[in-house]
Amino acid sequence: MDRRFFLKTTFAAAAGIASYGFADSNNRKPNIIVIMADDLGWGDLGCYGHQVIRTPNIDKLAREGTLYTNFYCNASICSPTRAAMMTGRFPGRVGVHSQISTRERMESINSAYCLDTRYPMLPRMLQEAGYHTMHIGKWHLSEWLHKNPDQPRPSEYGFDDYLLPYLNWPKCKYGDKWQQKTHRPYATELFVDQGIKYLQSRENSDNPFFLQMWLVDPHDPLIPKVEQMQHYNHMKPGQPYNEGDDKYLEPNRIWYSVVTEMDRQLGRLFDAVDRLGMSEDTYIIFTSDNGAANPQAYDTYIGWGSNGPFRGQKGSLYEGGIRTPFIVRCPGRVPAGRVDDESVISGVDFMPTFSSIAGYKKKAAYEQDGEDVSYALGGKTFQRNKPLMWQWRYGQARGAIHQSPMLAVREGRWKLLANPDRSRIELYDVAADPSELDNKADANPELVRQLFKKLIEYHKSLPDAAEGPYDKNAGKNTYAWPK
Amino acid sequence: MDRRFFLKTTFAAAAGIASYGFADSNNRKPNIIVIMADDLGWGDLGCYGHQVIRTPNIDKLAREGTLYTNFYCNASICSPTRAAMMTGRFPGRVGVHSQISTRERMESINSAYCLDTRYPMLPRMLQEAGYHTMHIGKWHLSEWLHKNPDQPRPSEYGFDDYLLPYLNWPKCKYGDKWQQKTHRPYATELFVDQGIKYLQSRENSDNPFFLQMWLVDPHDPLIPKVEQMQHYNHMKPGQPYNEGDDKYLEPNRIWYSVVTEMDRQLGRLFDAVDRLGMSEDTYIIFTSDNGAANPQAYDTYIGWGSNGPFRGQKGSLYEGGIRTPFIVRCPGRVPAGRVDDESVISGVDFMPTFSSIAGYKKKAAYEQDGEDVSYALGGKTFQRNKPLMWQWRYGQARGAIHQSPMLAVREGRWKLLANPDRSRIELYDVAADPSELDNKADANPELVRQLFKKLIEYHKSLPDAAEGPYDKNAGKNTYAWPK
Repeated sequence: MDRRFFLKTTFAAAAGIASYGFADSNNRKPNIIVIMADDLGWGDLGCYGHQVIRTPNIDKLAREGTLYTNFYCNASICSPTRAAMMTGRFPGRVGVHSQISTRERMESINSAYCLDTRYPMLPRMLQEAGYHTMHIGKWHLSEWLHKNPDQPRPSEYGFDDYLLPYLNWPKCKYGDKWQQKTHRPYATELFVDQGIKYLQSRENSDNPFFLQMWLVDPHDPLIPKVEQMQHYNHMKPGQPYNEGDDKYLEPNRIWYSVVTEMDRQLGRLFDAVDRLGMSEDTYIIFTSDNGAANPQAYDTYIGWGSNGPFRGQKGSLYEGGIRTPFIVRCPGRVPAGRVDDESVISGVDFMPTFSSIAGYKKKAAYEQDGEDVSYALGGKTFQRNKPLMWQWRYGQARGAIHQSPMLAVREGRWKLLANPDRSRIELYDVAADPSELDNKADANPELVRQLFKKLIEYHKSLPDAAEGPYDKNAGKNTYAWPK
Repeated sequence: MDRRFFLKTTFAAAAGIASYGFADSNNRKPNIIVIMADDLGWGDLGCYGHQVIRTPNIDKLAREGTLYTNFYCNASICSPTRAAMMTGRFPGRVGVHSQISTRERMESINSAYCLDTRYPMLPRMLQEAGYHTMHIGKWHLSEWLHKNPDQPRPSEYGFDDYLLPYLNWPKCKYGDKWQQKTHRPYATELFVDQGIKYLQSRENSDNPFFLQMWLVDPHDPLIPKVEQMQHYNHMKPGQPYNEGDDKYLEPNRIWYSVVTEMDRQLGRLFDAVDRLGMSEDTYIIFTSDNGAANPQAYDTYIGWGSNGPFRGQKGSLYEGGIRTPFIVRCPGRVPAGRVDDESVISGVDFMPTFSSIAGYKKKAAYEQDGEDVSYALGGKTFQRNKPLMWQWRYGQARGAIHQSPMLAVREGRWKLLANPDRSRIELYDVAADPSELDNKADANPELVRQLFKKLIEYHKSLPDAAEGPYDKNAGKNTYAWPK
């Protein structure tokens, strides 16, 4: 492993951190279920304002719990977001800058090919707090495990058990292995099947559990079965325009169908929690790993999710790339029917917050980027003590108006986006202007100065700050104007 | 016909307008071919900066002629744009506010169900100037002609001959009638076949001709044949993910293929012009009727064109909705290899400009909105004398950041967008900020005041200004925020 990933800090016992006192509210520490969708946009759920997509089960979860409108991923792309949730640190601090694929590819772009197992990890912390920890579904924190057996497994990150597609997936009704891509339409069904089995296995245990379920829906490829598209039959063209190979069905309907099927399967999981009598002892958290992708950035099967009113998409630091749904339900602990428009929450907060929920008394000896937001889960507005920082080193989001600068910081109601060389400076009051269309930089030079200073210090503090190479399009919003 | 459409002005003989003197440059008045694509975005051609789509024939046309980057449609939707090109007036002046469908529908939204034939018309003017006039392809200026035989035909607007899909289309190799939608993949081929026949019929005529060819490509539905998709085989998924009904091909590739097929067929038309020795006597003009559509605004087969670096799309008054390609070739009269980034040109200019090209000596007794931009075609930068005005009464563009105010004006480098009730005021320096992301209204109150005054005067001057109803979403950019 690259020495850049060497862990210089340790996870030592120390004084307990301030806690909302969840573990004291009854005799049993609450279970935690985190469900993360893949490439689902902030606006892709009925409860987040979508006018067409049917997501009755997630909408119900939101009604029974609290819906947060200011939740941020720590990256606008898969692996870094996940690394942040696992470590409580901004992904740049642990060297995960882009989505993990092959070692060669990752070395060529100076990004980690696996998350270093030596960092403090959320599941290990929960193990120490007495939790049984389980991961089901997508992983994407080590180089392709099914092709590279020497790569660390989830167990090396602190999971007592795990089920990964392509690796150790059990026999199921669709075949022995979760290997054929033809299983894609059943992906969430398979995950939920295993999730329910896991819940059943924990029913009579004295220990609480942490179930991390990372979906592959609604990431492309999108191949819903005809029966899964039934809710959107009204969107069917009235006549076949063509036959055989030339039959092109409608992408909107395909996207909606995949999201609705995901919701339908998750409904089975939520029902199982209730049926097993676990509701009041179990946090169910639903989120996504980044904003919906721009379909034009991809060549093959890809949907067109909704990033709500936001500018930006997957691969961008505008809100559309990093603001995602965040719903928390735990009757009796989390207020029902609440919409929290104030608390700014992020993936790095998972570690300190779950620590609090788990009644974990040790204090991290390294500086976490996340904060304990358990007050926000408990129904109070949470004010961050530290700003949120983002760095995106590559070009990806297609469409000039979605291509953000390389760095971003949110502090209070303000968000500054900038390139390290100051070639772009954009300041938005995202509380009043969530679409980021009204650049207030010129009118607030002192605020720009302060936020830029913090941003550039963060940027320079990264272990590989000087290494690059950055994608030649990073931070640019140029267009090949006719000449 | 509704009395609102009654023509109060007449088209009377008067002193000749200033002309670039095209008719004097040789003994023969030049022919004019106008080709208009449907829903093609500003950024959908290689010569306009697209990095993937292959459009070699149109790119060649641009190299042999002049490419304009500041061409505007007078609406961001089909029929009003066409009405403006036919009349030289902003479409609101002739009551065509939205795309023409059924009489009932159009009456319910207070928009004309056909363009009143009594207005002065471009093809009639050219007839008077000695031209033979021909329309081939999409029409969309009368209520569905194939279903309503009482509606005016193109002949009543000044075309000597016309060929309309569904109406009087001749026999062709794909069947007797251009009626089945299965003919869609051959639409441009059919139009070009007839166009070439028309060129051949004009070869030995003493009179110049005006050929207006309005394509249906690349408007949805998009159903390229497999062989038409060959240029994008590299975008093919590596394996079949599914079989039979569940096979969803990739929308990018479908869009690109339709555009490339359109380009391939147009290449045959351009070649015919050259082969028939007409090149130096024939203006070939290529444009589109509005920006590319947001696929999310539609339920069925729809592509995702590129509006280049612009914000906005079909149904929006941001640049992406109304700025389209405009390429003019006429060797010896129009400079080759020129890119004109300065001249602001628009569809209402067709009438006075073609008047100039045709050496038409009468002067319009009514006030035209268009201007003679023949200087710009001849290679000089053209400065408009009057601003361009837009009004869009309905909600359509999906995505809050693309939903523009109801009114827009461009004057010089500035563009003001506003709602009549001043609920939104946005001022952009579109020369420096073509993406319309930097609202300069606060910094330029006097300019805003002047431009708003012109806008509201235009708005109030429309014959049906007070009639409404306006779509409840017109001019709004709201989102159903979670509550």
